[in-house]
Amino acid sequence: MNYVIGLDYGTDSVRALIADAADGREVSSAVFYYPRWKAGKYCNPGASMFRQHPLDYLEGLEASVKMALSQAPKEVADNVVGISVDTTGSTPVAVDKNGTPLALLPEFAENPHGMFVLWKDHTANAEAEEINTLAHRWEIDFTKYVGGIYSSEWFWAKILRTLRVDEAVRNAAFSWVEHCDWLSAVLHGDTNPLTLKRSRCAAGHKAMWHEEFGGLPSEAFLTQLDPLLAGLRDRLYRQTYSSDMPMGTISKEWAQRLGLPENVVVGVGAFDAHMGAVGAGIEPYSLVRVMGTSTCDMLIAPNEEVGNLLIRGICGQVDGSILPGMLGMEAGQSAFGDVYAWFQNLLAWPLREFLSEEEAEKMVHKIIPALSEKAALLPVTEHDAVALDWFNGRRTPDANHTLKAAIAGLNLGTDAPQIFKALVESTAFGARRIVERFQSEGVPIRQVIGIGGVSKKSPFVMQNLANVLNMPIKIVESEQACALGAAICAATAAGVYQTMAAAQTAMASGYDATFHPQQDRVAVYEKLYQKYLALGGFVENQY
Amino acid sequence: MNYVIGLDYGTDSVRALIADAADGREVSSAVFYYPRWKAGKYCNPGASMFRQHPLDYLEGLEASVKMALSQAPKEVADNVVGISVDTTGSTPVAVDKNGTPLALLPEFAENPHGMFVLWKDHTANAEAEEINTLAHRWEIDFTKYVGGIYSSEWFWAKILRTLRVDEAVRNAAFSWVEHCDWLSAVLHGDTNPLTLKRSRCAAGHKAMWHEEFGGLPSEAFLTQLDPLLAGLRDRLYRQTYSSDMPMGTISKEWAQRLGLPENVVVGVGAFDAHMGAVGAGIEPYSLVRVMGTSTCDMLIAPNEEVGNLLIRGICGQVDGSILPGMLGMEAGQSAFGDVYAWFQNLLAWPLREFLSEEEAEKMVHKIIPALSEKAALLPVTEHDAVALDWFNGRRTPDANHTLKAAIAGLNLGTDAPQIFKALVESTAFGARRIVERFQSEGVPIRQVIGIGGVSKKSPFVMQNLANVLNMPIKIVESEQACALGAAICAATAAGVYQTMAAAQTAMASGYDATFHPQQDRVAVYEKLYQKYLALGGFVENQY
Repeated sequence: MNYVIGLDYGTDSVRALIADAADGREVSSAVFYYPRWKAGKYCNPGASMFRQHPLDYLEGLEASVKMALSQAPKEVADNVVGISVDTTGSTPVAVDKNGTPLALLPEFAENPHGMFVLWKDHTANAEAEEINTLAHRWEIDFTKYVGGIYSSEWFWAKILRTLRVDEAVRNAAFSWVEHCDWLSAVLHGDTNPLTLKRSRCAAGHKAMWHEEFGGLPSEAFLTQLDPLLAGLRDRLYRQTYSSDMPMGTISKEWAQRLGLPENVVVGVGAFDAHMGAVGAGIEPYSLVRVMGTSTCDMLIAPNEEVGNLLIRGICGQVDGSILPGMLGMEAGQSAFGDVYAWFQNLLAWPLREFLSEEEAEKMVHKIIPALSEKAALLPVTEHDAVALDWFNGRRTPDANHTLKAAIAGLNLGTDAPQIFKALVESTAFGARRIVERFQSEGVPIRQVIGIGGVSKKSPFVMQNLANVLNMPIKIVESEQACALGAAICAATAAGVYQTMAAAQTAMASGYDATFHPQQDRVAVYEKLYQKYLALGGFVENQY
Repeated sequence: MNYVIGLDYGTDSVRALIADAADGREVSSAVFYYPRWKAGKYCNPGASMFRQHPLDYLEGLEASVKMALSQAPKEVADNVVGISVDTTGSTPVAVDKNGTPLALLPEFAENPHGMFVLWKDHTANAEAEEINTLAHRWEIDFTKYVGGIYSSEWFWAKILRTLRVDEAVRNAAFSWVEHCDWLSAVLHGDTNPLTLKRSRCAAGHKAMWHEEFGGLPSEAFLTQLDPLLAGLRDRLYRQTYSSDMPMGTISKEWAQRLGLPENVVVGVGAFDAHMGAVGAGIEPYSLVRVMGTSTCDMLIAPNEEVGNLLIRGICGQVDGSILPGMLGMEAGQSAFGDVYAWFQNLLAWPLREFLSEEEAEKMVHKIIPALSEKAALLPVTEHDAVALDWFNGRRTPDANHTLKAAIAGLNLGTDAPQIFKALVESTAFGARRIVERFQSEGVPIRQVIGIGGVSKKSPFVMQNLANVLNMPIKIVESEQACALGAAICAATAAGVYQTMAAAQTAMASGYDATFHPQQDRVAVYEKLYQKYLALGGFVENQY
């Protein structure tokens, strides 16, 4: 009997899932919400500043694993053989020579610049632009494997921004570490930033690491970008590792704290969506979409088939970032469920203004289900209202976080279900734009596999997506595909399986629903999609 | 002691106002809501078909005048010297040889095509386009004095549509009469369509009547448009009359029914907004805006100063349509208060969905005041959301009722007050587009005078309008400027005053508020206005 633990660090909480390494069956799981984050500390949403304190993560590690173990049969803890971590990303932190995040030192305990810069922090917009400008005129375009556009959500932009705005952090920051790498190193008991095994996934998708470049972008490039970066490259890393590899065994301290055997193998970490794709049973040319507030879209293809392509405008193409031997490709929409939530909150305005909080919230939760029900009954015509889904900018294709959303084709008769329908369609059109980009760049997509909250909660949204993409959508059965994917990685790293593919075959989730395109709607959506593209073209040129 | 009665036929109701002819003071007034209209009869809003039954008007005439008289001191009725009528328009009806609307004949009593085709009926979109196409390639462009574009809301389009779709009406229709002409003729007791005095205002603004053409468009033009129109021109009119002229004295029958002296003078009728401008004390180069669900914008200038101009894209320029001796110009926005009402109803969706009707409606009425309060506190920046106000198409400049509205510049932080602010601004931008058109065509505008519901109810909307136009807005004190204007016309027609100008000086309303532009906002609105124009350009080309 072998058990493995997958730790899934999301935006609001961490989930520990204990799985049977033989078949992926969930033994138990537990969730811990980050207390400082929940209290809104260290953030300024108006300025798109989002930081997380390392203590939120450490407390969550201990609490979630212990809780999950406490709910499992007694013998489980003794038979845990592996543990792997996925996290959001790019979520880097400044560390000292020991690999300790600065916010864990007394003098930086309350300084947001010494904390993890969460994936959705957009304070580094200007720095991202500088990186793009320089990269595009440099002899080697270091952005070429991340779609040609570097994002403010990523590693270097966030580092540069922090070094510029906080002298104390600048002086104290020896190196920088991604959340997924740091947590895995903490469990292993050695956080030395010069030697800890860095995730191929994080490095390749967010830090412009590539074999062709000899690793990270050159010292000359970085120093030209800003002399503040001089010397940092040597204090980061040259090698990177895929998530089938072990980071090492668990430290005695953490084995004790968690109540685990001392020979538990800690796997190399990766990003949540990538491990989610593993948990969802990703296979070549199937697009795995993690559909929640935003989406992260994962695609793999054999290196020998697509290894020579340079795919413009996506969030990166990295050998082995999802499965070893496969080119892992990432894309996504910056707002998906968030678009519907925006409209829900808009309509909730009078409720919250005129009713007690309790009365209002009772009704607020009924808004999206009621809208979905009415919108599903509406006919679809080419004269319908058309929306643009860029409520949080655009992640792919061609990242641009300054873009904004729009709704067109309104008249006095346009009501709430019609606008909701247009918004849902806009998120499907945004997905289609991504699919078409992959296709036009030479990577076919044969089906879509959905995971994440919206995929389970909204058949209306999923049916619409199938219609707009003219492609079947399979919905993953597991509610915890990311944590399950981490467990699969842990089983591979621990040697239960020889390859990740074998581990996936044994352990990945099945599907509990498939949405097929309704052929009578496909043609109308073709026309509405052209209007969506035109609206997008206008907004991109004007706003 | 002389008293005059102004009858104001609006879209939903008729108001009778009794005024002291010496100073315009309101003695009493009464409102009557059209019962068939209120019950939703003879209309199909989904198809933009709006018809009104002549009995609604006749019953309203008797009821409103009697009610107003019953509330006035006894001696008033005996000292009434004049009565004038304003109505919506273009609101024509098919009549027989006696000038009787077909719907008053038993065989057409329930036939919407035998009723008045209300101003906002858009069933004749195709006919309007045909008129434009033919007019623009005809040797004389008969649309040149109505802004170059004929609208589906106007006389000929509605006639042609009706003749095409209803053979029975086609065979029975001897002639056609505007609501304002028919009601005045009814009071006078002679509705002969060949001799009744037609309103210069209705003829010039809606029927392409002009001295230069020798009256209405030529028989050759009309027959070319459709042979169904052959011969109709001769059964309409050659002469037209301004509203300072008498139609004649009241008929014995109506004097008796209303309890008025037999020597009461009935004035020539006109449209509500035109008489409203008179009641508001219109003077050269002041734009009088009737701001309700939509707007009607009135402008006058001396013939000798602007008589040679051809103003593109407005709803017409007619010598004497507002004041004799002045060129009367009309423009307007197809949706104004309706835009705010649309947003109110959108936000009311959950209230109406989840609460009882009574509970919901109690809160619905609080939405716009609450939004106005919050929106007034918002800063104004060039990055704010921008809306396009074409929720009911565009009336001026350059009428196009197929255009639709849009909202751009949205992100996840955009809330209801911000969208409301954008919508209010969009209606002000629509007004600015009209003002700029007049200016670019050579007609300066020095100030704006506001009448109508929105001008009285929403200081937020009015302040915004002053900022966007960078022009002071004076608000007329009278709540009944249209009915007061009709009373002023009645006093002139009855000979109490030698000229309309003299009657206006004595009787027109004063102002109870002035909104001055806030100079710190004017520059920002300049930038937002450019975005509005760009959004409009896109929508006009694409949707």
